[in-house]
Amino acid sequence: MDSVEPSPYTQLEARFQRLLTLGEAASILHWDSSTMMPPGGATGRAAQIAEMSAVTHGLLCAPETGDLLKAAEDANLDDWQRANLDLMRRRHAHATALTEAQVVALSHASSACETVWRKARAENDFDAVRAPLETLLDLVRDSARAKSDALGLSPYDALLDEYEPGGRSADIDVLFADLEDFLPGFLTDVIEHQSTSTANAPKGPFPIEAQRQLGIKLMKSLGFDFDHGRLDISLHPFCGGTVDDVRITTRYDKSDYASALMGVLHETGHAMYERGLPDDWRYQPVGGALGMAMHESQSLLIEMQVCRSLPFLEYAAPLMAEAFQGSGPQWQPGNLHTLLTKVTPGMIRVDADEVTYPLHVILRYRLEQAMISGDINVVDLPAAWDDGMERLLGIRPANDREGCMQDIHWYDGAWGYFPTYTLGAMTAAQLYISARQARPEIAEAIPKGDFKPLMDWLGANVHSLGSSLTAPDLLKRATGKYLNTDDFKAHLRYRYLG
Amino acid sequence: MDSVEPSPYTQLEARFQRLLTLGEAASILHWDSSTMMPPGGATGRAAQIAEMSAVTHGLLCAPETGDLLKAAEDANLDDWQRANLDLMRRRHAHATALTEAQVVALSHASSACETVWRKARAENDFDAVRAPLETLLDLVRDSARAKSDALGLSPYDALLDEYEPGGRSADIDVLFADLEDFLPGFLTDVIEHQSTSTANAPKGPFPIEAQRQLGIKLMKSLGFDFDHGRLDISLHPFCGGTVDDVRITTRYDKSDYASALMGVLHETGHAMYERGLPDDWRYQPVGGALGMAMHESQSLLIEMQVCRSLPFLEYAAPLMAEAFQGSGPQWQPGNLHTLLTKVTPGMIRVDADEVTYPLHVILRYRLEQAMISGDINVVDLPAAWDDGMERLLGIRPANDREGCMQDIHWYDGAWGYFPTYTLGAMTAAQLYISARQARPEIAEAIPKGDFKPLMDWLGANVHSLGSSLTAPDLLKRATGKYLNTDDFKAHLRYRYLG
Repeated sequence: MDSVEPSPYTQLEARFQRLLTLGEAASILHWDSSTMMPPGGATGRAAQIAEMSAVTHGLLCAPETGDLLKAAEDANLDDWQRANLDLMRRRHAHATALTEAQVVALSHASSACETVWRKARAENDFDAVRAPLETLLDLVRDSARAKSDALGLSPYDALLDEYEPGGRSADIDVLFADLEDFLPGFLTDVIEHQSTSTANAPKGPFPIEAQRQLGIKLMKSLGFDFDHGRLDISLHPFCGGTVDDVRITTRYDKSDYASALMGVLHETGHAMYERGLPDDWRYQPVGGALGMAMHESQSLLIEMQVCRSLPFLEYAAPLMAEAFQGSGPQWQPGNLHTLLTKVTPGMIRVDADEVTYPLHVILRYRLEQAMISGDINVVDLPAAWDDGMERLLGIRPANDREGCMQDIHWYDGAWGYFPTYTLGAMTAAQLYISARQARPEIAEAIPKGDFKPLMDWLGANVHSLGSSLTAPDLLKRATGKYLNTDDFKAHLRYRYLG
Repeated sequence: MDSVEPSPYTQLEARFQRLLTLGEAASILHWDSSTMMPPGGATGRAAQIAEMSAVTHGLLCAPETGDLLKAAEDANLDDWQRANLDLMRRRHAHATALTEAQVVALSHASSACETVWRKARAENDFDAVRAPLETLLDLVRDSARAKSDALGLSPYDALLDEYEPGGRSADIDVLFADLEDFLPGFLTDVIEHQSTSTANAPKGPFPIEAQRQLGIKLMKSLGFDFDHGRLDISLHPFCGGTVDDVRITTRYDKSDYASALMGVLHETGHAMYERGLPDDWRYQPVGGALGMAMHESQSLLIEMQVCRSLPFLEYAAPLMAEAFQGSGPQWQPGNLHTLLTKVTPGMIRVDADEVTYPLHVILRYRLEQAMISGDINVVDLPAAWDDGMERLLGIRPANDREGCMQDIHWYDGAWGYFPTYTLGAMTAAQLYISARQARPEIAEAIPKGDFKPLMDWLGANVHSLGSSLTAPDLLKRATGKYLNTDDFKAHLRYRYLG
């Protein structure tokens, strides 16, 4: 039988299908490492994940991939295929900037450092994790330099570009300077404003199984399909797994139900993005989520914009009271809203309110830039962290556990990730304002526990577009504007001083 | 810096290290599929596992692997390295017999058929699984023919050789004929003998959490280390994971604690074999377990030889009574021993006693030979199964759920596996008799709940030897004899007519 050789573009699609399928396998292994794996499995798991990285790196960097990318340049492609090809080229450029030995070394060093960090954090022992973090940072610096040369970006931007394709620190600097200008004064006003309001926290303990069942109920309300996903426990909550098997995690505290619940709703926002990605482009780069800022916007839109709002609490407060067999004024929507929007400068980023959160991020953004440039080293980190907290938030950590050891990032090899949290918060505000303007029924449905109008709008304007547009162009299409601080500041003023 | 090219053998070790590391990753994905994965993840998971099979198949079949195997032939190797090279050659021969397309098709068809089987079995609907099983059997027949040509074995032996390296149906036929001769008459005698004994079964319900905790306690007694393993739930119990992260599963029934408990102890025997394999040869074929018969011997030695014996129950009976807050004569060791050694012909292999179990296996062995040769097809299977049950065990299934749909094997693509269960039972009897002869303290320690002398002997004579000897040679070294039916029959006579 004669056969016609597929076009270079078609061959690239087949190659990336293999790559992304292996990536899904690795994603399940990562989830397992954080949720199921006994401690004695860590060394072997690091080897497995490193080997899978080596395989995908090898496939991506094979000379044929480069040849096919060149050969596909003049192909007659539609917009999605063109966007797909651009994303393939970007991934190839990132991958070929590093040798396989570098990739394997980074994978091993990340796994090793993260494992040590878990124990060191628990024991508040920064010295224990210093050496593996130094090893890891040296490798990340090398990697940043290599990518800088290959991509024509600064070393920091070359790392940022992995998490936020097209993201540049020059743009972030402008947005963050504006927030740094606005937030401290605003924070003072909010604290003053809130000092007159009182709220009574519901009393625990809140049994973990009841917390879990409440989380599941609200996840289902938001549209999470348990035939295509799970809810489990991990030290650092995340959304992982694959598009048709989304795995979110949380951690429970018997004395505080709200922390796990809001975390679950946050991860559900991530999960709904994954589940809404375009089926037709599964296993292709263009079918995947945009950068981490857009991903975070989906979780923050659900958690911060929707679930901490009074209209949502009109629906959820009775369910919360029922879950914990509570009654009385402390379970009233207004009281819960006051509690869930309380602003207090604190040490821990993941527990921070949305007013102080950007200041946590700005601290980390500046520190990670300085670590990559070499302006500060691992040994300088604890003091630099504590000084930064004092300058930005007016409080000083008592120890490294509530200081520079609190986050998994860096210890897992991720430098250049932190700014996406606050870019996501700004994106969320901008999207949610536009959504409610475009479709008033979105806001009307929420107190009834009906999230379909919202999810439909997000599906049409964000999820189903995959990566067919750049993040700025998608945001412009959805909201009429590029990313700016106005809607975020308007949201904060309305919620906290309104 | 000058570098000397590593020897062909050393290069092969590096290549197999990669292969076995990827195999470990696939093993965790298999475990996840059976324990954690939501149903909607099945299609994607099948793609992931098929892609990993393609990658490892590609590595194993690459022309360089063949070249290195040739080049290493005259190398100066020690015994372990020589055995390792032989095992590499065997795996290469198996793998190169199939095209990558065949491997991927088999992986997909197995995943698809297994998924349909889970539902079809629950619904007692053989017709629902007929088409996927036919597709799968066609692929397995093609694969058997291809391997037959490549390995110079009969098609059935070529499949058997994957699970039991060096195993040949001509040898099995002799052993099984002997058992088929012995067992029916023996079974009649046992039923007659047991008709005079009475035993009172402890009354349930047996709460699942109590069953789980009791299982964990006894696993720990046997030496299972939960820093290197887990116990979970799956439809078909198994031992999976990796050497340093062994994952065993069971299924619980509130009305019958013994079934899950004996299952847990059985899988613990498998797990201890994995954990005892030689560290120095991790990631090399010679460092892995011998075939499935030796693996099954380790689980049956623990479950059947040890844990259903009176001396073990002297230790375990009080723990069982305590777990379920029971007391009285039904929790006495003698009573439990009578219950745990009760012989009754039944429909379900995994629930069968050790007297009737080989007859279940002989039925499947004959049927799978006939399916591979083409003497029977999928459409003929239900009737052939039911007729065989009637002939061998004197009972006829009422439906396919308790007939030809009961086992996962075949539906997951495994033809040639079944005989290893009974080879394992015979091996277990032979090893345990020799162990107690060699070290009398083994038997003395068991009523005290001390399994160290036994595990030490198994470690020295089985586990730590990995695959450095063939199964027959290892058995000869440990027991002075090749595999035969004498010790198994002696064990049965002692336990059931003694």
